[in-house]
This record gives sequence, C-alpha cells and structure tokens, in this order.
Amino acid sequence: MPGERILLGHGSGGRLMHALIRDLVVKKLGNPVLKELADSATLEFKDKLAFTTDSFVVSPLFFPGGDIGKLAVCGTINDLAVSGAAPLYLSLAFIIEEGLEFSILEKVVDSIASEAKGAGVKIVTGDLKVVESQAADKLFINTSGIGRIVSRRRLSFANIREGDRVILTGNIGEHGLAVLAKRKGVDLGFKIKSDSACLHRMLLALIRGAYGIRFMRDPTRGGVAATLNETAESTGLGIVIDEASLPVSSRVRAACELLGLDPLNVANEGKAVLVIGREGAGKTLAALRRNPLGRNARDIGEFVKAPKGRVIMKTSVGTERLIDMPLGEPLPRIC
Amino acid sequence: MPGERILLGHGSGGRLMHALIRDLVVKKLGNPVLKELADSATLEFKDKLAFTTDSFVVSPLFFPGGDIGKLAVCGTINDLAVSGAAPLYLSLAFIIEEGLEFSILEKVVDSIASEAKGAGVKIVTGDLKVVESQAADKLFINTSGIGRIVSRRRLSFANIREGDRVILTGNIGEHGLAVLAKRKGVDLGFKIKSDSACLHRMLLALIRGAYGIRFMRDPTRGGVAATLNETAESTGLGIVIDEASLPVSSRVRAACELLGLDPLNVANEGKAVLVIGREGAGKTLAALRRNPLGRNARDIGEFVKAPKGRVIMKTSVGTERLIDMPLGEPLPRIC
Repeated sequence: MPGERILLGHGSGGRLMHALIRDLVVKKLGNPVLKELADSATLEFKDKLAFTTDSFVVSPLFFPGGDIGKLAVCGTINDLAVSGAAPLYLSLAFIIEEGLEFSILEKVVDSIASEAKGAGVKIVTGDLKVVESQAADKLFINTSGIGRIVSRRRLSFANIREGDRVILTGNIGEHGLAVLAKRKGVDLGFKIKSDSACLHRMLLALIRGAYGIRFMRDPTRGGVAATLNETAESTGLGIVIDEASLPVSSRVRAACELLGLDPLNVANEGKAVLVIGREGAGKTLAALRRNPLGRNARDIGEFVKAPKGRVIMKTSVGTERLIDMPLGEPLPRIC
Repeated sequence: MPGERILLGHGSGGRLMHALIRDLVVKKLGNPVLKELADSATLEFKDKLAFTTDSFVVSPLFFPGGDIGKLAVCGTINDLAVSGAAPLYLSLAFIIEEGLEFSILEKVVDSIASEAKGAGVKIVTGDLKVVESQAADKLFINTSGIGRIVSRRRLSFANIREGDRVILTGNIGEHGLAVLAKRKGVDLGFKIKSDSACLHRMLLALIRGAYGIRFMRDPTRGGVAATLNETAESTGLGIVIDEASLPVSSRVRAACELLGLDPLNVANEGKAVLVIGREGAGKTLAALRRNPLGRNARDIGEFVKAPKGRVIMKTSVGTERLIDMPLGEPLPRIC
C-alpha cells in the first residue's frame, strides 16, 4: 500500500511482525528452508565451510549502480569467495527505523531477492528489529554467509612469497565515489556508478583453474591501500606497485582530483586483489579479462623482500612514494 | 583509556579500525580462527548444521541480570539449541554510534567473551561499523550462529500430535520487566532480574535423554503468548493451558498488575517452551527441575483437536479465555 510506513509494532514479535515477514520477506525470498520460519535453518554439509558476517549501513540506501540490498548480498558473497568458498546460504537481519516507508523496504527486499537468485545463493534464516524514530538511520542490514571451501590449498597470507605478483581485477574507486557524489549531491559533470557486484563465479573459476592463486581479498573500506598494507604487514614482505599500471578510469581520476582523494583509498565493492605466483600471472590475467567483471584487470606489482611490511608505489614520474595504511576512509558509511 | 570515545574513523577500514579490532575484540575473544582476521572463518564439518541470525538493539545496554553482550551470545545460542543443535561458532557484528565511550564497548566485549567461554562457543568472524552520532542509538549487535544438529529426529511443528503436553522451563516475564523498569526508571519496590541465560546444555540434555521432545522454541519477543499462537497456527491444532499452572513469580505478577501487562505477552530470554509426548512429560519435568535454569519448570497444558489454531486458557476462576497473538510487544527494543 503506497505511503504505508513501518511501525515499532512491526518489530515486536506479534501479529504485525509475522504479517510483515510472511507477506514481504518470505514471499520474495522464499525457499523451503526459510519458509519454515524456524529459529535456525537446518543445512546438510559434508565439507569444509567458510563462515562470514557483514553489517551494511550505507547512506544513502540507493545510489548509482546499487543499493543496500545488493551490497548486503554481494558483500557477503565476495567475503566467502575471496576465502576460496562457493557461497551457498545467507542469513538476513534487518534493523529498521520506525516510520520507514514500506515501499523502500520492499524495494530493498526486491533487490536482495534478485541478487540472491542471480548469484545462486539461498537466504535461509532471518531477523527483523524495529527501533524508534532517530534511534537508527532508516535501515541497516546484516548478512552472514556460509560457503563450501573449494580451494584445495587454503588461501592465506602464509602462502605469499617474494616475487609473487599482485593483480587487481578492475578499475578502482568507483563505489566510494558513487556513494559520495549521491550523498553530498556533488555534480561531477558525469556519472560514476558503483562497481557493486558478486564476484564469486569469476574468482572461483580462477581457483578451479589452478593458476596458483595464493591469496585474495576484496578492497572495500580503506580501498586498495588498506588491503595492500594489511597483506604486506601480515606477510612481513614489502609490496612495490607501479602507478602506471593502476586501473583507474578517467572519470574516477578526474573526480578524485576534484575532491582531493586518492583512488587507492576509496572503497570498491566489485573488485578483488589477487596474489599469485609469477608463473601463473599471465594466465590469470587472460582468464579475468574474458569476464566482463574482470575486463580491466591489471598486474600492478609484486612482493619484495624489503622494505618489510611496507607498500611502495613507483610513480609515473620515476619517483617512489610510500602508500600508507589510511587512517580511515575519506567517507563513513560507504557500505 | 578512560573517557576515550569511538570515532567515525574507527569504522573506516584503516589504521584506527585495525587497532580497535586487534586491541579490543581479538584480544578478548581471541581464538586461532578469529585471530587470522580473514574475510571468512574456515570451519570443518561432517554433519547436519543449524544456522541462525539475530540482531540485538536492547535499550538500555545494561540492565539487572544482563546486558546486550550477554543477550547477543545467549539469544543466538538458544535459537540453535531449540532447533536441536549444539552451538559451536558465532559471528559478531557491531554497529556503533560515533562518540560511544570506549569503556562501554569494552564492558560489552568482556561480557561477550565471558558468556562465550562459559557456553563453550567460539566467535570466529566479525565486523565493525561506526555511524555518525544520532544515526544509531549507542550500540547494536548482530550474532549469527552455526551449530551441529544432535537430535536424531528433526524438531518441528510437524511432529506435534493431539494430546502432546506443553512444558514451560521456568518463570516468565522477567526479562521484559527488568528492561522496562530499568529503561523507564520505574521503582517497583523490589528488583526483577532478567532471566537472560544460555539454555543449550539443559535443552540438549533433554534431547539426548530421548524423552520424546517434538518441538522447542524460546518465547522472546511477544512472550509465551506469541510462541503458543505461532505453534498452534502452524500445527492446526489448538492449545489449552491452565492458568493455575503458569510459572509466574509473585514479583512479576505484582509488577504486571501495577503496569497493566499480561505476563504471557512479556519477553523472556532464558526460557523455552517444549512440546513433548504425554508419556515423556513427567521424566522431562523431573530432568528440568534438577537444573538450576529449569527448577521452576511446569507442565502448563496440552494440544487439543479444537479450536484449531487457537490458544485457550482455563482461568483459576473456572472460565476460559482466548490468548490471542499479541499485536506487538508492550515494549520495543527489549532484545
């Protein structure tokens, strides 16, 4: 019903909540496991599992290229995929501000349903809380996920060796800038769309292809700079990247210059950083580029013995620059 | 450091967030799986699993008998236990309002660590978001959980038959009243403590005891009235309960009369409703009463052919009263 709003009673365990869950959530996300509305979903497994959780507090809820529902599905799927796991099951927990328009919640649930279906994952358990007006900002979503580990060797920092290559699966900075521009109402003169996407099919194909992937991570909050710094610190090796090889679109470059941002610090939601043995890098790049989600993949650098735990960028003018761990994202609530 | 507060940067993926996670969360909850800070936890299983999720938005964060951290651990553990699963692994996701005192977060993490340790579960993966001041109310927590199904027969509505008994594991209404009194500053002249507790050991012992448990559920939001109504509706049978047998402490009874509440509608966080074949009810009650968490357990009624899907209470004065599904909890944000 147009204009209908969420009431506190919708989160209170009674008739209103049951109607909302049945008529909206189960109707759109329904599968035999979820439909039972049991306290837990019962799942059959005989394998090694990955388990992850992520809360989404992005503001605004809708932005060019995505929305909080798409992020909540793809973000958790990507966390499983970079751990070498095929995503299977998601949980879905809403915290809703009283007064939220029902149609907004419906649009988000539609987006979740469509992304989950496209990605081949099932939402099997959930929760819904409503808090008073101004006790939350519209809508927060938590998705936790379970996947089946498909990589024979565990993907881990510990696999990384000197000489290993660093591959970025595509252009960086698009998600953070899309959200920032939409939130602040900045007119850049052109549109930047979030790269929000589920990467599991592309990444798991690389693992199955046995190119020698050592480690993967999705550079979300803190951007590529945070991911590279974490990786360097954990391995005790250094990373040298080549500025000229960084995949940055001309729009992102222009927007970052305008806004005083470094694209390396800006969040991505549809990219992965891969570490791979030197011999497999070429095949990996070729495989990535055959996939629309990886068509701008680039080999951006390598692991070196020193400086330990540091990330150095060789700039296009021939100098070297330290890429530090950002103190924080330039922008809160980008995911 | 006393007086230190959470900043937006603590949720931004950079150096501040990493320090907070390492120095607070991992230090207190640490185990080999969590310590890796991978995107997903890797877990070994060769069994049937249960998977559940719950967000906690209780206000205030601390109340007699518990706090949001204890609720977040025990609530999710109880959801697994009533599904017949031994809880093993939890995820932990914080949404924090900027400016929250660091010491409050620390107290909550201490409580989580202590409950998880006591319950024998491991927190293996997590997430931390910070939103601007007034975009959330202090602190919300999501815990998702994985357990191994130990019941040979699946616990389900579908097992319930006419003549089955309904057992309540203890006194009702304590959690909701404790939170309400604390939040509103109501002086009842006596203290009511939340019953918040992890029930898995007691409930799983009943399952292992093979007394013939058909179904279990924890009557949280909406109280026992909501749980009984859900169960009756799902089975297509009716439930007749006996008012005289309802386990309600004299304090809760007095407080409910004072506040105009029905203890059947008030939330519990350390109780379960059990459905069991008539022949096993006595043994189940005896087993429950040997456990401090079940010492006030009572057989409160039975499943009947009619009225279908309805819950009827035989009152102490000899009349019958329809116990309806509550429209909502009397109080939002009790869990």
